[in-house]
Amino acid sequence: MISFDMDYAGVRLYFGELSVKKLESHLKGFPSVALATSKSAAKVSGALEDITGLLETHSISYEVYDKFTPNPTIEETVEFARLAWEHGAQAIIAIGGGSVIDAAKVAAIARLNGNNVADVVYGRSHVLTGVPVFAVNLTHGTGTEVDRYSVISDPERKEKRGMVSLYPTASVDDPRYLITLPKDQTIYTALDAFYHSYEAATRLSSSPYVEMLSREAVSKIRDWLPRSLADLKGLEPRYWLLYASMVAGVAIDMAGTHVIHTLEHVVSGINPKVIHGAGLAMLGPRSAYYTHKLSPVKSAAVLSLFDPTIKPTSDDAERAESAVRQFQEKVGFDQRLSDHGFGKDDVPSMVEYVVRNRALPGPDLVPITEDMVRDIFIKSL
Amino acid sequence: MISFDMDYAGVRLYFGELSVKKLESHLKGFPSVALATSKSAAKVSGALEDITGLLETHSISYEVYDKFTPNPTIEETVEFARLAWEHGAQAIIAIGGGSVIDAAKVAAIARLNGNNVADVVYGRSHVLTGVPVFAVNLTHGTGTEVDRYSVISDPERKEKRGMVSLYPTASVDDPRYLITLPKDQTIYTALDAFYHSYEAATRLSSSPYVEMLSREAVSKIRDWLPRSLADLKGLEPRYWLLYASMVAGVAIDMAGTHVIHTLEHVVSGINPKVIHGAGLAMLGPRSAYYTHKLSPVKSAAVLSLFDPTIKPTSDDAERAESAVRQFQEKVGFDQRLSDHGFGKDDVPSMVEYVVRNRALPGPDLVPITEDMVRDIFIKSL
Repeated sequence: MISFDMDYAGVRLYFGELSVKKLESHLKGFPSVALATSKSAAKVSGALEDITGLLETHSISYEVYDKFTPNPTIEETVEFARLAWEHGAQAIIAIGGGSVIDAAKVAAIARLNGNNVADVVYGRSHVLTGVPVFAVNLTHGTGTEVDRYSVISDPERKEKRGMVSLYPTASVDDPRYLITLPKDQTIYTALDAFYHSYEAATRLSSSPYVEMLSREAVSKIRDWLPRSLADLKGLEPRYWLLYASMVAGVAIDMAGTHVIHTLEHVVSGINPKVIHGAGLAMLGPRSAYYTHKLSPVKSAAVLSLFDPTIKPTSDDAERAESAVRQFQEKVGFDQRLSDHGFGKDDVPSMVEYVVRNRALPGPDLVPITEDMVRDIFIKSL
Repeated sequence: MISFDMDYAGVRLYFGELSVKKLESHLKGFPSVALATSKSAAKVSGALEDITGLLETHSISYEVYDKFTPNPTIEETVEFARLAWEHGAQAIIAIGGGSVIDAAKVAAIARLNGNNVADVVYGRSHVLTGVPVFAVNLTHGTGTEVDRYSVISDPERKEKRGMVSLYPTASVDDPRYLITLPKDQTIYTALDAFYHSYEAATRLSSSPYVEMLSREAVSKIRDWLPRSLADLKGLEPRYWLLYASMVAGVAIDMAGTHVIHTLEHVVSGINPKVIHGAGLAMLGPRSAYYTHKLSPVKSAAVLSLFDPTIKPTSDDAERAESAVRQFQEKVGFDQRLSDHGFGKDDVPSMVEYVVRNRALPGPDLVPITEDMVRDIFIKSL
């Protein structure tokens, strides 16, 4: 398992065992930093101790905020930004999965510019610069450690929004921290990375470079997710799933997602207890049907990694749906929206929400219609 | 053929037909720029006219230097940097292949810092910042439009040196400019990109990400170089060869090259008429023998694209050599060092040069010995 460094866009990435040590050269010299975490993952993984040890070695003052939740809110983000400002923190270290890192990226902007969290979340901020963010990634899902995006929830409006925030200055993908990830999180986050790959590659406008990244990530998830589930403490499966999620992160940074992420944000906006990766996986198979119908060549380029006989034609949309569903069942995922309190009666308002917010992917991405959205929700119940 | 933009490290890349137009947003506002070109390619390809048209539209003053040669020298680079300084140029536009862009990157440093070209070339400069470089790439070889390297010759010392210079600010890979590339240049530059891919991926320390990039580039060169040779004016083969060389450029920026590039610089340092890609291709097959012997798993990952039965073991070194040689013969390359004035008597001094300059790749790259270098030169005569 080779360790490596990489410069992607604005991010310096350190990948591999013990790569956390490479943050030292970035951090020393800062008088004061603020640490963003959730309640337990940073501690359980050992990452928090590694980072605080490093900060203490260099006499860097730090303040820890550990209240970020799986679907982080505007309120939590403001609270952390305020703590960072009060503490005079000149950098932010995010130790967590996508939720923590996403929120920390937005908080870094607010820490510098004054409390503009809601403006950033709703795309109204003129400035998207922030204090430097150093991300220590603890899941193999989001890829947010190498991309410019955040997803933040607004419980008042029952909305979950994706937006541009900023790139971390430097990020760490150290597979040692992943072996404490529980089984369900292992599945959900790896499927999140799968959907990043599949959506980025199937946009009609996406490039061969993105297709390369997506195929790379999906082939590793296909090979290593089952092995990781058979051996949760195994370092090598974690290395490859982490690698896949990082590669998929570059893919979405270059190309973006489309219908599956759009619809999942509606689902977990209504029920914040739905974990993002699980929400995607519930909507994914039927969404793959339409994605393959509308973007068959690009869809087949990815899904042929599951079923080499899938044809790059719209006719094979059902086989695309099956290929995705079968892979998910193989790794033990068979949840449906109805398991999470959604029923047929909820569908009209969910569809209406998508239309009202003009959230349908543009025709240059994949030309999904309102009827297709309705069918995806219904078939995912 | 999809056009796309990409941010890699410090570079904003515009890839695809007519992508040159995207330079406009970067250039407007500059009062004055200096253009680096060689004698004819910038004119023949139409790129010079496109750029000067764009500059004139925005009333940007420009000065053209068209004296860069295929192995650009310190003297040429100084001359261009001086012209840029005298003209008050606040940015440099390089329109050419690797030679022109490499030299322009070094000249951009000298333009800003005073004439420190020799210091940059010999790795003695403390500063590697420069005025912005915009690269309009006219070959599918070097990948210098997305990497931080330059190669500059010092005819007095009969040396050709590779060094870190800087990343272009923005680069253009527009396949329209490639259809005027002559047949021999088509072969040489595509083989240059092949060796970038093969060397980057076979360093013992190189990452799975680099392996992915290298396999992508090599598979496109394998498929599209023969088609380009059958249809030199065809845009689609040029698109893919340009894509491959760009991807290979990212690979060498991340991982670097090793023995083949080291030895080629000796060859074309002695005889500057040897075109870089041709020099690599003369030395390549025998170098692949040792590379496969020393780094068999990584070598097989790439060369299996030529011969799927190649095994990832040292035993298959001869088949690695054959695979490379056969591909080169298939695309019409069968030159040897003896065709360029080298004989058995030259070998001792060439080996001695490599050893004296401590130019052997380190043991963490591929542990090539002096004896192996001697054998590579002899078998390439």
